[in-house]
Amino acid sequence: MSLEKLSSNKAFGGELTKYKFKSAALGGLDANFNLFLPANAAGGKVPVLFYLSGLTCTEDNGAQKGGFMGPAAQEGIALVFPDTSPRGAGVAGEDDDWDFGTGAGFYVNATNPKYARHYNMLTHVTLELPEVIQAAGLPIDFTRQSIFGHSMGGHGALTLYLSSVLSGTKQYRSASAFSPISNPTQCPWGQKAFGGYLQGGVEEAKDKYDATELIARTGGEPLHVLVDYGTGDNFYKQGQLLPENFLKAARDAGYDEVQVRVRSQEGYDHSYYFISTFGADHIHFHANFLKA
Amino acid sequence: MSLEKLSSNKAFGGELTKYKFKSAALGGLDANFNLFLPANAAGGKVPVLFYLSGLTCTEDNGAQKGGFMGPAAQEGIALVFPDTSPRGAGVAGEDDDWDFGTGAGFYVNATNPKYARHYNMLTHVTLELPEVIQAAGLPIDFTRQSIFGHSMGGHGALTLYLSSVLSGTKQYRSASAFSPISNPTQCPWGQKAFGGYLQGGVEEAKDKYDATELIARTGGEPLHVLVDYGTGDNFYKQGQLLPENFLKAARDAGYDEVQVRVRSQEGYDHSYYFISTFGADHIHFHANFLKA
Repeated sequence: MSLEKLSSNKAFGGELTKYKFKSAALGGLDANFNLFLPANAAGGKVPVLFYLSGLTCTEDNGAQKGGFMGPAAQEGIALVFPDTSPRGAGVAGEDDDWDFGTGAGFYVNATNPKYARHYNMLTHVTLELPEVIQAAGLPIDFTRQSIFGHSMGGHGALTLYLSSVLSGTKQYRSASAFSPISNPTQCPWGQKAFGGYLQGGVEEAKDKYDATELIARTGGEPLHVLVDYGTGDNFYKQGQLLPENFLKAARDAGYDEVQVRVRSQEGYDHSYYFISTFGADHIHFHANFLKA
Repeated sequence: MSLEKLSSNKAFGGELTKYKFKSAALGGLDANFNLFLPANAAGGKVPVLFYLSGLTCTEDNGAQKGGFMGPAAQEGIALVFPDTSPRGAGVAGEDDDWDFGTGAGFYVNATNPKYARHYNMLTHVTLELPEVIQAAGLPIDFTRQSIFGHSMGGHGALTLYLSSVLSGTKQYRSASAFSPISNPTQCPWGQKAFGGYLQGGVEEAKDKYDATELIARTGGEPLHVLVDYGTGDNFYKQGQLLPENFLKAARDAGYDEVQVRVRSQEGYDHSYYFISTFGADHIHFHANFLKA
């Protein structure tokens, strides 16, 4: 699992590096990710924030368009940008749709035998990437991790965070999301993805991969969650995101605005123009916990 | 020349809009540009900063990756992102190379008859875009314009600015550039472009389109110029940019570091990661003059 450096760009006093490695979690396929190290990483290990991207994206979208590196450099926080699915698994039909298969791994571990060898983005993000980064001797302190994401990646960030709270590993100190798919078992994108990747389909997903379902079960455990969505977002209007369901479940579970903050942003859409507008906010939110 | 709105995205409290219109300067072809209006434009006309992009780019690269809109929103400055060439002119060979023809207009008015009908990015940027924006009633104060750009667009920004000083129109209050092609008559990119677009070739360009030549002739007129380039930039290493020639000409002409500042940035390359690192700096530089 040794890392091959594909490219490197100096940015904001630090360095953005693209790596490739043979991913066991993804069935031995090559996997890419980007890592931003701020300048202070030269002096010792730094906290890390994972950014999970949305449907059709790669490890590049967030790095190029998110506007995250400037504030992360200020805060002295590293950023990891994983890809959004395995590439080239060769499963029949995986390239037919933009919202399923390649570019659309939904941050699950597939249990449907057709996908189970390769579509394991959950393990890839939560276990494998920390392992390979640590094994390479890169200056990241994995006792200080947080996670955020956009759309499908917002779903990933919220579910990986809440799952780590429920399981007691508490891998992430905080989670945030831009326009997350907040209740995927109730929307077409999620139903399609879970119906494909999971042997138990939507029912299996309710137990493991739905932020609205999960937050109903974390009661008592302290949470640090920030969500932004735009009222001009067509996917929001089409009922793919359902942030109100997540908000209601959070309040029903006793979480207040400090622990779970969901902000409706007037007129913003689903694009990286929206994300970059609030990117610095999210970085500073996570810094509160990563640097505590 | 009425404007058709192609898309619109809220960003940083303002609005980024992509427009299309039939461009007389470009021989009647459709031309796109992006316009960012900050929130304060709702209350009256705002100053404007033109961003000229580099080889192979369109009106989108700077808007998506430059990191300019956040600081421009803070300063209350509009941004115009033109395309880099006519599109679909149908001139034989215009799509053969990435550094000539489509995507590579070099911000000149072509005098070679083969290109003269369409390749007039100089007029497009300096006259036509202000005209159509003004005619559309958009809240821009064109008595307060500045200009910046990257690589080929840095060449454009410097030459359009210096030409407006030399001609006495003083259309722009300040100019800045990231890794500009600073002495194009002395580098392969410029020689190829001028040899193609201009009947008089490189000699014609020396008179009109070479920042290093032009600054030798502006002596006495006050200038406001900022240039950043990276020492890790492969095009710099290959001698395509030649910022030292521009700097020497500026100093020989009597300009000091306040009037013409050229900064060598250790380890940075030619990418938008470099640009976005110093984007806010450039916006604030121009704000000094646009808001004076």
